[in-house]
Amino acid sequence: MIRFDDRAGFAAALADLSEADAGATEAAAARQGMLTKPAGSLGRLEEIALFMAGWQGRERPRVERVRAAIFAGNHGVAARGVSAFPAEVTAQMVANFHHGGAAINALAGACGAELAIVALDLERPTGDICAEPAMSEVDCLDALNAGAAVVEPGLDLLLLGEMGIANTTPAAALCAQAFGGAAELWVGRGTGVDAHGLARKAEAVRLALLLHGHRCSDAFETLRRLGGREIAAMAGALLAARMSHVPVMLDGFIGCAAVAPLANDNRAITGHCLAAHGSAEAGHGRLLAALGLEPLLRLGMRLGEGSGAAVATQIVRSALAVHDGMATFAEAAVAGAL
Amino acid sequence: MIRFDDRAGFAAALADLSEADAGATEAAAARQGMLTKPAGSLGRLEEIALFMAGWQGRERPRVERVRAAIFAGNHGVAARGVSAFPAEVTAQMVANFHHGGAAINALAGACGAELAIVALDLERPTGDICAEPAMSEVDCLDALNAGAAVVEPGLDLLLLGEMGIANTTPAAALCAQAFGGAAELWVGRGTGVDAHGLARKAEAVRLALLLHGHRCSDAFETLRRLGGREIAAMAGALLAARMSHVPVMLDGFIGCAAVAPLANDNRAITGHCLAAHGSAEAGHGRLLAALGLEPLLRLGMRLGEGSGAAVATQIVRSALAVHDGMATFAEAAVAGAL
Repeated sequence: MIRFDDRAGFAAALADLSEADAGATEAAAARQGMLTKPAGSLGRLEEIALFMAGWQGRERPRVERVRAAIFAGNHGVAARGVSAFPAEVTAQMVANFHHGGAAINALAGACGAELAIVALDLERPTGDICAEPAMSEVDCLDALNAGAAVVEPGLDLLLLGEMGIANTTPAAALCAQAFGGAAELWVGRGTGVDAHGLARKAEAVRLALLLHGHRCSDAFETLRRLGGREIAAMAGALLAARMSHVPVMLDGFIGCAAVAPLANDNRAITGHCLAAHGSAEAGHGRLLAALGLEPLLRLGMRLGEGSGAAVATQIVRSALAVHDGMATFAEAAVAGAL
Repeated sequence: MIRFDDRAGFAAALADLSEADAGATEAAAARQGMLTKPAGSLGRLEEIALFMAGWQGRERPRVERVRAAIFAGNHGVAARGVSAFPAEVTAQMVANFHHGGAAINALAGACGAELAIVALDLERPTGDICAEPAMSEVDCLDALNAGAAVVEPGLDLLLLGEMGIANTTPAAALCAQAFGGAAELWVGRGTGVDAHGLARKAEAVRLALLLHGHRCSDAFETLRRLGGREIAAMAGALLAARMSHVPVMLDGFIGCAAVAPLANDNRAITGHCLAAHGSAEAGHGRLLAALGLEPLLRLGMRLGEGSGAAVATQIVRSALAVHDGMATFAEAAVAGAL
């Protein structure tokens, strides 16, 4: 199991990213060219097959062992009225996950993913990012490693999801820090705040950047100051997955915001990522563009919990089913193009 | 089983379309409002649940009996060099469907749909639409009824797909006839024709409209003159599904083009339809807009065979899994919005 010993270890791993297996990618591309369909006619399904082949290192990738890791954390900034729901809902929803009643339970079941629910010190919210760092160095490292712990070599796909009342606000702060732009460009309605709530979110992001912006020297420090435990955990899982050659399905705004500080240090970090969906959260389109990711779905979802990632996993299943199951022109005795 | 006795029977059925069950839709909407998620946060998944509830007439719709009907036909216009593949590929691909080697076999398996493969007089291509009607009245009625025959009450969802070398040309002619616009707006690369092939397609559409346009007095006559057997079969299946309250998943350009003449007579015909995907075929975006349909997926697919419909069926599965499986706020003891 991968464990980051300290912030330097995390930074070193982020600086030295592995690449996909080019031979497996090429073998998969050659296979696609022989299947009984016009070349390129399956569009992104073909791209997904090549992507999965490269990261799994096999011509015919699998999607048998899929894990949906859902991290939960609480946020000091919630006290500033930046969410439509009270902070106790984080713990209540974690209980709902355990009892099988949440959207991600149904969606993970539908896509054949096992759930790993990781609640991170819910009784101990992070610091209010407008007034102090979200986490101590030790707390941030613990969160990164809680994320890394969900990664096992041999997973065919890892879905990253989260739950944390108020976490669109630190997510917006991470985006503004990584990619610039006014706070208003990155905050959105989240679970459903009104215009006043939206204004409070923008103000919180401004205050947080004013306090921490010039001290965000690298990904670790940025996550520590502006992030949250579930956000750092997703970042740790993402990097550990890369080190284990496990492809990752990113979910919505929060999950992509967890990638932002890492991408700021090393743009190649998104190489093993699929973006599940473009969410209804206002800043997500801009964030995906900044990360260079084109989402698989656009269904107007904005729930979190890895819900979009679970739906998009069905697309991966379809892509690999055709890649593996179809006959070649020669096998089926079908004539090729004129 | 539904059977259209003659063209008048088809026209009468098209003129008198049933509506979805408003009570079931409302009950499903009420249930959605109680589930443990912010209101509206599942976007189109919520819309799909309501759509399926209305057409199935139950608060908690199912997606157990899914049938993918794939109709195949040959086209006289193929002799004009409008396809990148030779006409014998239609029959070869039907054999491939039967042997399980095509994309739709893998994708139907992945989405849990049973396949109904209906080859329509492949040894007897339709007339060249540039020179004569595609079908006699009897042939067109037979094709409509071959489509209707795949519909059974109690199907939870019907996917409509097709195979027919050269069939993007009659499909483009149907679009131009129904919605106007130059032939160039409706023809595309199909399975991969070059610029010369594209020009031949546009010329064929122009010739066909010149010959038949003013005689296309209703949906039946338009299908008969400009369509093809697999296209008429999809139209027949679509109308029979409506009469049986079976919701339909439309696939790509050809499947939507089969709806065009029906929509021209009665816009409400798309009421029981989901559009699976926006395909890479040039005219499909314009066609979807003309039909008032917003596709579930945009994956750059352009294969036909119902392939996009099968992938999109996974989205329906996800939508109904959450609708049926989630706990309510009361059941899970989760606090509501502030």
